[in-house]
Amino acid sequence: MDAELSDALETLKQVSTNTLTTQLLKRGMPSMFIGGTSPLNPAAGRLVGPAYTLRLIPMREDKLTPEKGRSPDYPQRRAVAECPPGHVLVIDARGDTGTAVLGDILMTGLQTAGAAGVVTDGAMRDTDAMIALNFPIFCGGIAAKNSHISHFASELQVPVACGNAAVFPGDIIVADADGAVVFPVELAAELASNGAAQELLEIFLQERVAAGNPIAGTYPPNDETLEAYEAWKQNR
Amino acid sequence: MDAELSDALETLKQVSTNTLTTQLLKRGMPSMFIGGTSPLNPAAGRLVGPAYTLRLIPMREDKLTPEKGRSPDYPQRRAVAECPPGHVLVIDARGDTGTAVLGDILMTGLQTAGAAGVVTDGAMRDTDAMIALNFPIFCGGIAAKNSHISHFASELQVPVACGNAAVFPGDIIVADADGAVVFPVELAAELASNGAAQELLEIFLQERVAAGNPIAGTYPPNDETLEAYEAWKQNR
Amino acid sequence: MDAELSDALETLKQVSTNTLTTQLLKRGMPSMFIGGTSPLNPAAGRLVGPAYTLRLIPMREDKLTPEKGRSPDYPQRRAVAECPPGHVLVIDARGDTGTAVLGDILMTGLQTAGAAGVVTDGAMRDTDAMIALNFPIFCGGIAAKNSHISHFASELQVPVACGNAAVFPGDIIVADADGAVVFPVELAAELASNGAAQELLEIFLQERVAAGNPIAGTYPPNDETLEAYEAWKQNR
Amino acid sequence: MDAELSDALETLKQVSTNTLTTQLLKRGMPSMFIGGTSPLNPAAGRLVGPAYTLRLIPMREDKLTPEKGRSPDYPQRRAVAECPPGHVLVIDARGDTGTAVLGDILMTGLQTAGAAGVVTDGAMRDTDAMIALNFPIFCGGIAAKNSHISHFASELQVPVACGNAAVFPGDIIVADADGAVVFPVELAAELASNGAAQELLEIFLQERVAAGNPIAGTYPPNDETLEAYEAWKQNR
Amino acid sequence: MDAELSDALETLKQVSTNTLTTQLLKRGMPSMFIGGTSPLNPAAGRLVGPAYTLRLIPMREDKLTPEKGRSPDYPQRRAVAECPPGHVLVIDARGDTGTAVLGDILMTGLQTAGAAGVVTDGAMRDTDAMIALNFPIFCGGIAAKNSHISHFASELQVPVACGNAAVFPGDIIVADADGAVVFPVELAAELASNGAAQELLEIFLQERVAAGNPIAGTYPPNDETLEAYEAWKQNR
Amino acid sequence: MDAELSDALETLKQVSTNTLTTQLLKRGMPSMFIGGTSPLNPAAGRLVGPAYTLRLIPMREDKLTPEKGRSPDYPQRRAVAECPPGHVLVIDARGDTGTAVLGDILMTGLQTAGAAGVVTDGAMRDTDAMIALNFPIFCGGIAAKNSHISHFASELQVPVACGNAAVFPGDIIVADADGAVVFPVELAAELASNGAAQELLEIFLQERVAAGNPIAGTYPPNDETLEAYEAWKQNR
Repeated sequence: MDAELSDALETLKQVSTNTLTTQLLKRGMPSMFIGGTSPLNPAAGRLVGPAYTLRLIPMREDKLTPEKGRSPDYPQRRAVAECPPGHVLVIDARGDTGTAVLGDILMTGLQTAGAAGVVTDGAMRDTDAMIALNFPIFCGGIAAKNSHISHFASELQVPVACGNAAVFPGDIIVADADGAVVFPVELAAELASNGAAQELLEIFLQERVAAGNPIAGTYPPNDETLEAYEAWKQNR
Repeated sequence: MDAELSDALETLKQVSTNTLTTQLLKRGMPSMFIGGTSPLNPAAGRLVGPAYTLRLIPMREDKLTPEKGRSPDYPQRRAVAECPPGHVLVIDARGDTGTAVLGDILMTGLQTAGAAGVVTDGAMRDTDAMIALNFPIFCGGIAAKNSHISHFASELQVPVACGNAAVFPGDIIVADADGAVVFPVELAAELASNGAAQELLEIFLQERVAAGNPIAGTYPPNDETLEAYEAWKQNR
Repeated sequence: MDAELSDALETLKQVSTNTLTTQLLKRGMPSMFIGGTSPLNPAAGRLVGPAYTLRLIPMREDKLTPEKGRSPDYPQRRAVAECPPGHVLVIDARGDTGTAVLGDILMTGLQTAGAAGVVTDGAMRDTDAMIALNFPIFCGGIAAKNSHISHFASELQVPVACGNAAVFPGDIIVADADGAVVFPVELAAELASNGAAQELLEIFLQERVAAGNPIAGTYPPNDETLEAYEAWKQNR
Repeated sequence: MDAELSDALETLKQVSTNTLTTQLLKRGMPSMFIGGTSPLNPAAGRLVGPAYTLRLIPMREDKLTPEKGRSPDYPQRRAVAECPPGHVLVIDARGDTGTAVLGDILMTGLQTAGAAGVVTDGAMRDTDAMIALNFPIFCGGIAAKNSHISHFASELQVPVACGNAAVFPGDIIVADADGAVVFPVELAAELASNGAAQELLEIFLQERVAAGNPIAGTYPPNDETLEAYEAWKQNR
Repeated sequence: MDAELSDALETLKQVSTNTLTTQLLKRGMPSMFIGGTSPLNPAAGRLVGPAYTLRLIPMREDKLTPEKGRSPDYPQRRAVAECPPGHVLVIDARGDTGTAVLGDILMTGLQTAGAAGVVTDGAMRDTDAMIALNFPIFCGGIAAKNSHISHFASELQVPVACGNAAVFPGDIIVADADGAVVFPVELAAELASNGAAQELLEIFLQERVAAGNPIAGTYPPNDETLEAYEAWKQNR
Repeated sequence: MDAELSDALETLKQVSTNTLTTQLLKRGMPSMFIGGTSPLNPAAGRLVGPAYTLRLIPMREDKLTPEKGRSPDYPQRRAVAECPPGHVLVIDARGDTGTAVLGDILMTGLQTAGAAGVVTDGAMRDTDAMIALNFPIFCGGIAAKNSHISHFASELQVPVACGNAAVFPGDIIVADADGAVVFPVELAAELASNGAAQELLEIFLQERVAAGNPIAGTYPPNDETLEAYEAWKQNR
């Protein structure tokens, strides 16, 4: 990862998913929100990093033998071994929230190896243990049901569908209390810088609104409000 | 708002939505429950007040220009400016929980202007900031997705659908941990008084049941239990 | 309940639903997970016990008179009076999470009479009061809507559907943060013993993985890992 | 079946489900529509008769052995043998339209034994063969998937849920192109007579509307229209 | 209606909804498809005309008295009386396909008064009679359930949601076997002309592809194919 | 394709999907049914052949430029050019039935090039034209909405999910009025032979049942019935 991208990702740790969907909409990209995921453990914080993808398809009795499911070559296992440090494991579970995609031992392996976190439109299990890991996990639900009952891990590092958004390997993922967003890495620096600027302005605007200023003229800001903002920014 | 209504609303702050759906069912009105909403911040407490309505329809690219969406004349903005103090902003989002209906700046404006709170079958975003406002917000979900991606704010103060219930401007809304209820203002005094009486009785009945009295004869109460209740009430 | 079953249930209090779905899958039983329920009050702890069932069908105006709904003979009321101590009341609500199946007074009665807890694919109401009971309640949602609006309690102690699983009277129910599992009583001893063994091994394996051992060779364990496990077990 | 009921059922063969939901609504019974079913073979005509019920719950691997599923004692098989002539087999499939509840051989047996037809909120298979039987079958969908994959036939002649309505054994079922309706047998004579009268009037009213008379005054009819109706009725 | 619009609508009777969604997508308007509707009677043909809207919200027992529901002032009745000749009645039923929005007498009145047809995301009943009218009706389903059970007709000629698209009074509706499309009247002439041109070209391209020409170079057409098209067009 | 497989596919043209799900269930493979698809044109007949797969993921504005979508290199276009004669194009549309996956020109190209047919859990458009092709097309719905609005064609010949079943390139697909089934090519000969035998027996059994023989002893057949079957088979 080059220095510019590192800097952008660092900045993005302070930029909310709300701000990012707004910035992306301005650029003609309304389809970048990964729907239906929430933090398993809000205290584990926000999640930012490049996507490493795992694709699950429906289980087939003739393909998923118990041996295969336990083999280190099984893509679900390989994902844990191969997801690079700092990356976000994105798991396409076809929106099935009734079956777990991972348990706590594989999740521990992922965290130990340095992954940034996990995003999936599927479910997690062993969630008490997962919460104890203090690791950013975003999922669509909780279910004890073993992944082998419904899922077959077919491939790593292919484009996937997650929460009705497409995620390509290397895309940037940002997730927080309001869900998860994906965008092409080429936009990282620009979104970091524009996003941070938008957020600073909005802190000011919220203060103004909280102080009783009317929405009209304040949000969005007219010239007078923008002038006040410039002054406020100088004095911070 | 006249004094009788003020008193009724004050009493209703202590009457649960459970009691109200039961009272409404007795009056032949089973359709008064707004389904699928829950408190974004349970610590912000219960919500009682007359409804002020905002209606969202699906976004249309030819109608929702960026200028229109940011204009003070846009009904979403006007709702914040015009919702009267003590009123509940009820937003019809067609049950779409994948897209936000409001962000934290508009929510701050609404609170600052004295609104009682918000009920919607749509989603909220900037939820960390919203939780910090300590303002009663009841919604169907959480999603960072910008409202302009899916919604067009078409009208204020028309009858709306919310959580599969109809809400007319001026109807009374009561919301708590178990969801939200709507009823016509004409019933406010009666429901307040009957609801409070039912709740007092049920406190007594729960104590009796907790003390080991059988359900039969206690709940619903027979004459003996009612007599004991009268005695208990005298001694409170 | 005989001593062997008592012992098994005691052991099962320490065995997670995750472990149980895995053990059941190994025995060719993937259909034992009760989907879509979660603990109303996680602090009330895990739930283990034999099932006592209540079946709800859609309300019919000609069958459910107010008198019938309040009568001690109504199966919903009888369930509270007749559910044996230590048993789990399993309520088939057809997955309708928009209507409550029980309120706090009946729940208090159930707890007072010694029931182990409740599992339903329906909703609960009076949930603040229910949470205060510190009683293990697993449900599909929360809704103030009175059960008489949508449900008719038709029978006790018949096989039921709950969360897309079949539950027969006397089946064993185990529920925790990851949901609820059902299995025939004949398997209780075997699942308790095998489940506890699996969990002990997995505690060791998670430690190994957390210490940086690769997934391959550790999970599932190869001979070397198993040997280390045996040594670890001796030293506990 | 007594003569009065026979006459009523004969009359009901000419009364539409639309008319019946209206008549039932007038009597305070809006919950009598069996939702989501349609005729597999519209040419096989309308279906009227008392309900004979079969209840399916989710499959359990420990309960549904291949032997049991093929045994004449299995309730699915017994339903075919025991459903009385003229009765409607109503199958509660929990609204699962992805799995068949019956195939063509059992359906042939049912028709041969004199059943009036079938209503289910589940799916049918062997549908080409079933269509060839010219037998009134109302179902929620079509799917080749074997019933043993998802269903366990648990009981006969108990109250069931079907299409979000409750059906009790002996209730009267009427089904046509617009779906299926259920009501208690006690109402059969009254609904037959009132329904037939409503339909005759509506034939007249539709003619009047088709002739250009305004809705106001015609539908519902004012005194003048009713007078014209009486004259029309005399002249038929 | 001016002559230009009349001409455009006449041309649009030959332009498919497929072509129109493609033309609208080219203009940056992907949100113009009314989802989930199909022709009740395909033989009644295509439907083109300006929208006249009726909005249904959930039924409320305190608002919808039997008298109100039967009054000529009830918006459902007024819609039939007031929908102008050549217009399409668009009914917002909130996607509820389990309840009818209209029966055959009101539908007859609408046809007699010269309406072009009906589009709704709700259900129809009396469908045998409706099919006999030979009138273009597009709906989301079929259900005998009386509209008064679930719907309250609140307003006419307001913007509505239908099939997850927004429809404004006066918008142009086109519906055929593939569903229904909506667009602003300002685009009618342009879409008619561009759509007809696209369709003529596609007839030619389909012939070429059917004759064995490869997709590459044919669809979309390269210069050679376009030249052949011009020659073909001359010779028609 | 070797001769044995050709023979098996030929035989499978007479074996129903019902028979196949039963045969697969006997072999411990209940997950082989592709749910929710039906024939667009039942008159076009049954569909049998090896799977050629196309995978669609959600549209991304930065990936799907109009140029890319029209390029012969776009996998949707390549699928038409590269699907081998006799093969079934299986399209994974993530169960989205609100958007078309193909139109009539590409479908014509596919038919002209010799494909056996198409199966998808998505929707089709230009359906009148498609029906006129007399080509076996199995889909989840009908919708005019352009595929570019919701789908991005990401890959060919990878394992896909379709109707909640996994389909691998080269798997055998059989589809008829009751839906579509998938199984590994290794089972083709065995399923063809066993399936045909089952169907012949069931023709006999249905005749016996239609003649009034009881289900018990006939279906499944006892020794006497099997003896009669052998005689019947000799005399055919």
